Formats: sequence, C-alpha cells, structure tokens
Amino acid sequence: MPTTTDADGATPGRGEGRRGRRGSGGAEARRAQRSSGTVPKSRYIERQIPPYEQLSEEGLALVEHNAETILEEIGIEFREDPEALELWKGAGAEVEGERVRFPRGLCRKLCETIPSSFTQHARNPERSVVIGGNNTVFAPVYGPPFVRDLEGGRRYATIEDFQNFVKLAYMAPSMHHSGGTVCEPVDIPVNKRHLDMVYAHLRYSDMPFMGSVTAPERAEDSIAMAKLAFGDDFVENNTVMINLINANSPMTFDGTMLGALKVYAKHNQACIVTPFILSGAMAPVTPIGVMTQTLAEALAGLAFTQLVKPGAPAVFGSFASSISMQSGAPTFGTPEPALVLYGMAALARRLNVPFRSGGSLCGSKMPDAQAAHESTQTLLPTVTAGVNFVLHAAGWLEGGLVSSYEKFMIDADQLGMMQTFCSGYDLSENGQAMDAIREVGPGSHFLGCAHTRANFETAFYRSSIADNNSYEQWEAEGARDAFQRANALWKKSLAAYEAPALDAGLDEALNAFIKERKDSMPDAFS
Amino acid sequence: MPTTTDADGATPGRGEGRRGRRGSGGAEARRAQRSSGTVPKSRYIERQIPPYEQLSEEGLALVEHNAETILEEIGIEFREDPEALELWKGAGAEVEGERVRFPRGLCRKLCETIPSSFTQHARNPERSVVIGGNNTVFAPVYGPPFVRDLEGGRRYATIEDFQNFVKLAYMAPSMHHSGGTVCEPVDIPVNKRHLDMVYAHLRYSDMPFMGSVTAPERAEDSIAMAKLAFGDDFVENNTVMINLINANSPMTFDGTMLGALKVYAKHNQACIVTPFILSGAMAPVTPIGVMTQTLAEALAGLAFTQLVKPGAPAVFGSFASSISMQSGAPTFGTPEPALVLYGMAALARRLNVPFRSGGSLCGSKMPDAQAAHESTQTLLPTVTAGVNFVLHAAGWLEGGLVSSYEKFMIDADQLGMMQTFCSGYDLSENGQAMDAIREVGPGSHFLGCAHTRANFETAFYRSSIADNNSYEQWEAEGARDAFQRANALWKKSLAAYEAPALDAGLDEALNAFIKERKDSMPDAFS
Repeated sequence: MPTTTDADGATPGRGEGRRGRRGSGGAEARRAQRSSGTVPKSRYIERQIPPYEQLSEEGLALVEHNAETILEEIGIEFREDPEALELWKGAGAEVEGERVRFPRGLCRKLCETIPSSFTQHARNPERSVVIGGNNTVFAPVYGPPFVRDLEGGRRYATIEDFQNFVKLAYMAPSMHHSGGTVCEPVDIPVNKRHLDMVYAHLRYSDMPFMGSVTAPERAEDSIAMAKLAFGDDFVENNTVMINLINANSPMTFDGTMLGALKVYAKHNQACIVTPFILSGAMAPVTPIGVMTQTLAEALAGLAFTQLVKPGAPAVFGSFASSISMQSGAPTFGTPEPALVLYGMAALARRLNVPFRSGGSLCGSKMPDAQAAHESTQTLLPTVTAGVNFVLHAAGWLEGGLVSSYEKFMIDADQLGMMQTFCSGYDLSENGQAMDAIREVGPGSHFLGCAHTRANFETAFYRSSIADNNSYEQWEAEGARDAFQRANALWKKSLAAYEAPALDAGLDEALNAFIKERKDSMPDAFS
Repeated sequence: MPTTTDADGATPGRGEGRRGRRGSGGAEARRAQRSSGTVPKSRYIERQIPPYEQLSEEGLALVEHNAETILEEIGIEFREDPEALELWKGAGAEVEGERVRFPRGLCRKLCETIPSSFTQHARNPERSVVIGGNNTVFAPVYGPPFVRDLEGGRRYATIEDFQNFVKLAYMAPSMHHSGGTVCEPVDIPVNKRHLDMVYAHLRYSDMPFMGSVTAPERAEDSIAMAKLAFGDDFVENNTVMINLINANSPMTFDGTMLGALKVYAKHNQACIVTPFILSGAMAPVTPIGVMTQTLAEALAGLAFTQLVKPGAPAVFGSFASSISMQSGAPTFGTPEPALVLYGMAALARRLNVPFRSGGSLCGSKMPDAQAAHESTQTLLPTVTAGVNFVLHAAGWLEGGLVSSYEKFMIDADQLGMMQTFCSGYDLSENGQAMDAIREVGPGSHFLGCAHTRANFETAFYRSSIADNNSYEQWEAEGARDAFQRANALWKKSLAAYEAPALDAGLDEALNAFIKERKDSMPDAFS
C-alpha cells in the first residue's frame, strides 16, 4: 500500500496555466497574497498519544470474517448505475440484478491501492491538511437545514448563515477545515446553492473544503470551480476536495451517491465512503453487528473508488449512533456508539486507510448540559480512537437538524483542548520539572518559582468558554451560563472577521462561472 | 503482594457478639431485614474493556526514577507526629527534624504488603464492594460547604441536605457507595457533625461509606459506630470504612491526617492516601512534574500505612487539577489533568495497589454546558484509565464548593452510561447479529426484525436526563433544558425514597452513642 502520496509540498497553481477568463498576476504573487493576513492556527493535530485499542484481536478478526460473509453471501446493492455493475463484473464479482456479491477478500484486495494518507490542498498552502496516519483534522457540522442562536431561536438557514459559519470556522484556532454544507442555504434554489456554497468556502476562507455530492453535475461544477482556483492540472494531479459519499444502509449505494463518487474519484478527489447508521434502524442493535455491517458496506464502497480510479484517495467513514427503542428518535453520546467508534477505528487501521467518524454529536435542542455531555461522550472517543477526519466537530445540534452559533463556539473550545491533550507528555528536563520541585521543597508553593515563571505563557490550555472566576465575581457579572457567554463570543468573532486575500481575477472568474451556470437552468426548490 | 484478601463472602455480624446496648433479634434476621426493600443496582462495575495506556514504558520508568530521587534527596515532612518519625527511623529512613528521607526503594518495598484489592463491607452484604483490580466503584461528591438547587440557589448546607444526598445516592442505580462528607452540615457543631454524618450513612442507606478524618478522636468515633453496626471483631478483621487522607502537598503530611490515618490503619480500615494537587500551586505546571511529585508523596503515605499495620488496606489516591495562570483560580476538565490521570493510573497498576482519582469535576457555578463538558472530560478519562474508587462521581459543582442537587442527577445518568460502556463488546452469536443482517438484507430496516425484538429491552442505555423527542414535542412540553429536567428528577427520587430496614436495637444503640458523645463536650464551630 502506498504511503503519503502527495505531501511533497506541491502548491496549487504551480507551473501551469489557468483558465483565461481571469486576470493573471503571477502564481507567486497570488500565493503571497493568499497567505497574508490569515488567522494563526495549527494545520492539524499530529497525535502524540497512542490510539485506545478497546476491541481484542479476536473481536476484530471476527468482525472482519463476518463482514466478508456479508459481502459473499448477501452482497451489496449498487442501484441506478449500470456502469458500476459493469465495473464489478469486470473485477470478478457476481452481479445479479443490482445485487453484487464479492468473492472473499476481493474488496480488501482492491482497497490496497488506496493511499494510507494524502494531502488535501488548501488555496492557502499553509492550510493544507494531511489526512491519515496519526493526524486528526477538525471540520464543522455538515448538513443542517436549520440554524439557531440565543436571540433568534431556531429558523431555516440562509446563505448568510452559511457564510457566517464559514467565517467562524476560519476564525477558530482549533478548526482545520472549512467543511462542506455547514448549513443548508434554503433561500437559494436547491439546484444552484452548491455554487454559492463552494464560492463561500473559497471567498471567505482559505482552508480546505468539501464539494457537492447531491448530483453528479453538481460534483462537476465543484470541480470546475476548484480548477479556477487551483488550476486544471493541479486538480487532476492533486486532491483539493474531500467529499461525503454516504451509503444507504443497509447494504445499498444509490445512483446519486455513486454518480458523485465517480466524478470525484475520476478527478483524483477524495471520497469519504460512509455507512450512515442509526443502530436499530439501519443496522442491528448490537455494537458488533453494527461494526460488521459498516465494514462490509465501507469495503464495497472503498473498493469501488479503486475500480473507478486505482490510487484515488478515499477515506473509510463510519457514522454510527443509536435510536430510542421507545420512540425511534435518534440518540447521541450514548455508550454503544462509542464502542462502535473504537472498533471501527481499529478496523480502518488494519485496512491501512484514513478514517472518518465521530464529531461533537448530540440530540439536545439547545447548548445545555445534555448537549455538552453527549458531545464530549462522542468527541473524546473520536480523538482517542484516532480518527483522521472529524466532520461535525463543531456546531452540531438537535441530531444534526440545526447548526448552532453558540454551540459552534463551545465545541471549538473543546477542540482546542483536544489539541493540547493530543500533544501528550513532555519528557524533557523542563517537563520533568525536578528543578522546580527541588527549589520549592516541602510545605511551600510553586506560584512564583522559576520553572512556573518560565512556563507561565503555555502551561495550561486556556478555555475561551469556561468561567473560573469566584462565585461573587460571576454573580456580579450577571451569573451567565456557557450558552450566554458563547453568544457574546460568536458575535465578537464575526465582528473581528477579515476575509483572507483573494486574487481579484479569480474572484471575477468564479462569479462569472456561477452566473453562467445559474443562468443555464431554471430554479428548482425540491 | 497478596491478592484480594477478604472477598470471601464474610458478612458483618457473623458468629460474634455485638455491644450489649441494643436488643438482639439474631444476626440472620437482621441480615434478612437489611437486604429487604432495597433499590436494585449493580454492586460495582467490573470493567470488560482494557485500561487506556497513554504514557510509554520509558515515561513511566522516568517518573518512578525521579520520584525515588525526591524521596531520597528532598524527602517528605511528617509534621506534628513524633510517633510517625520514630516509625520511620525504625524502618531505616533518615529523619532530620520532621523531614524524612528514604533510601531508594524503601517505600516501594513497604507497599508490597498492601492488598491489591479488598472488600469494603456494607451493612447490606449485597452492597459490599471490592476495591481494586478491574473494578470501578462510584461514590458521591465529598466536602462542599454549600448546596445548590434550581429554586433555592446557593446556600450553606445543613444536615437535612446531607441526608438528602445520602438518600439520592441510595436511590441512584449507578451509585455504588454512600461516600462520606456529601456536604458539610454546617448547622451542626464542627466537633459533633461527624456523628450525625456517620449515622445518616447507616440510617438512610445500606451501602458502604466513609469515616471522619478531621481529628483522630472523630476517626475513633466513626470506628465505634461501625462496631455497633458490624460487631467488634468483624470491624477489626474486615474493612467496613474507607477514609480520605490527603497529603498537604508539596511533600508534607500534617498531624491531623496522620492521626486519622493511624487510627484507621490500626483497625484494619482503608486509607486513601491522596496528594491533593492544583498544578501550578502545589506542584509544578507540567504533567510529568505533577506525576512525579504525586508518586513520591503517595509512596511515602502508603508505606506509612504499612508501618502502622502491615497488610492494612490502602488506596493510592491522586487528585490533580490545574489553576488559571491569570487568576490563580482552580480549573477542571482541562487536558493536562487528564494526562496526569492516565499516567497515575498506570503507575498505581505498576505498584499493584488500588487507585482512586477523577470524578465528575467542574469549575462551573451551575449545571450548564461548562459543567457538563468539564465533568465528562474528567469522568471518561477516570473510567478509561481504570480508576478503582471514584470519589466526586456525582454532585460536584463550583470546584467542590457546592453539592448540586440537579448535577447529582445529571452525573448519575452519566455514571449509568459508564456501566454500559465498560461492559464492552458482546462477541456471542447474539452480539454478532448475523441472523438479523441476513433476515433484513439490503434496502430494508431493522426496526421489527426478530433480533431487534429479542433485544428490545436491553439494547441501548436509556438516559434519564436526555430529551430525544422531536423539537415540536420538546417545545410543547416547555422547552426545558437538562437543568430543569434534573430538578424534577431529584424531587421525584426523594419523594419515592423509602429507608432500607434498620434493626431497631441498632438504631437505638447508635442514637445512645451519639447522645453520649455529644453530651461529653461543648459545641465548637471552628
């Protein structure tokens, strides 16, 4: 299996012509402009702590065996896509109608050409991320049709909300990725909003982002816009977008998702193949059952990316939560999905492919203690399991129906903590601090000792949300809870926002492309 | 090192006379009465998931080496206790004033007689806990002078509050232990309140509990009351109380704590020797520095229990959090204490003694998102590090200044989740669920399949706090947050409370003893 394929420092726009529609100020000048005035942050987390291996070798081997049995005996449906069926026939699978059955080991063998890690390039090269290995990349919530904030309450999302979340992610020191559908801008026609979404990621951020997957032609539009920003050849030879391809669990891929997958894979863009599972509805109620089915579905989808283009980057995705057995409602932050997450991360490591899962998931309707408990009960397993790409890392509320402004800020603070947590133990002389212990001795205190003074600035993570003042001071300041404090924070962040530099010619070209595409079709709202 | 010393099913009161002051209805009858009408719950968690080993062998060995250097070169102060200094001299330590320096390896050698696990007997034998090994025991918050609830706000705690928290712990399915100072009943004189506290644990619960450590004579009173309940010989030969002995970090034990330690160890009762450290104040600002100092202090204190009585049960304790470098205020749920916790748990395992740490700690003034994040950022590391005895598992608010009624209920729900989480993976045929996957097949759902129906009752943990209803239903029901829902829950729990049976003669004897002791001294309030 290849190691990192393109973490070679290649930068977008190098040595190649761009589309003629926009002015050319020179690639060097554009790069310099792109990286100026940007918010300082780490590109991604390089974990210094080992992954937490919860499931035994016996358990992992059992799941792998049973997943192959599913692939061999039950098979996976590839619907509404004759080309996919032809590809599978050619690869040696047994095709019966839209059902594909796989000889044991075929999918795993095909997955061997998936890069174990890859660089997703950002338009600001300093923001490019390496997905895989010991790295963790945080991206915002994806998909909610609603937004919520303290004063405005819950309402349908608009393109202005979308732009706001892109800006908040850009401003957040702990956020490494601009994400994709940070909320659904339902004020824009459904067949045109992908253009405004991709534009917002390019215009209001300089971080890596995700393309549209809601139709193959929207995936093509996403690639066309990326080519305007990065150059034709650069896009074909590097990865500049990562894209969310969900399975229709159980054991089904539909034509829409397969169509988008094929577009992206052909152009060397990364697909996250994710069985989306609410245990009890789309999979059995037991963790091992969920893991087995997830592995079978992911193996089939990941293998399919390699039939489309061997060597195309792909990510093993697992979204697994549960339902309430009383009401059927989805639940989050419960213990069973955490067990699944640890197991799936280990299975992805055994397959040697990058892994996506987890996030800051919750079922709560507001950023209260329920939301916080459920989010951390998801996020800590996410990080300690060793997830590489974390969608929904901030802002997710109400089972993913709502992008919450306040929760975005609260979650982002937790993500910052994870960065410190993952840096692990400093075994240096300074980390050992024996001089401090000798200096202070029994019965005294360390507040003013030389070691404390030397490490004052960086000693502890400083939360932006937590109030650690005295009770009296907290009362005097209005006895505000975390929800209220987060409200002030997102407003402050948006007020301080300054857009990263964008080449005027590129902006013009993007807008011209968007106008051309919008003018080419009537509005559709469903 | 001995393994479990007394998990042999010995039950209190067996085959021995009790003090004559109370009526005797026969031990069998009393046992039957004690175990009737009790709340069904697990005795403790037997973890089926492995501990998360975060720190390398190299790191652990480095900390051990440096801790021995502290013990050898700097030493530990044993203050206001000439007997302790004599014991150390006899053991081969170097004593200079109140400073004790230890030859490398002496403390570790002395710790070899500490049982690797032990049974703490409850007055209801079904509630006895085994502390050590793969077990985790949850106990309530310890020490707050204030209580808080939604309507009453923050106020000084009373004995009624104390009794209420004992009752809530008794009623909580996830709580294994009645704890100790669940709040400080400041309406009772400081020199007499320990009598009412021990009585409340015996009267309003049937779970194991903690004795007083605020003065040696209060420790003696605690033992006297335990002997009334369990019988003289039983107490001398078994462990019926566990007791919190904090070091005065850095590197100091004071006369009060040493006095209580000696009383309990002599009577075979368990001492938790806990360096209480806010990093930056009582120890260096680096995790490795905190761990090194904690290990040195704990080694000295644990070894001292064995000088007092070889084989006496003892628990390695670590309470480590940080301070704000801006204000000096304690902070909780930050990443650095989590790193310390994982490391200390591993060091305790290498010493082969039971380990106490963690809890549901937070600095927040109310049960909001801050409280929840901080608590889970402490509790999940607590459980996955493999802590054996978890004080402050529920109810802790505002840095331990406040026992919160609502947070108690929210935390207890999280503890229940941990019980499920720790049960790990079911690799049985039912757990594998291949029949379900075969039955359902591609494109359908699992809601009504035979496997789902068979596992309906126990499939997922059911939260008592989370609201997973639709947004519309949640709004119609008053749009309540977790804080408000928890308020209703603790009231419901107290309203449903029924005291476990208590032998009338024992109750009489306990009250007579309390009266005698209270009458013997004037009230003191400081």
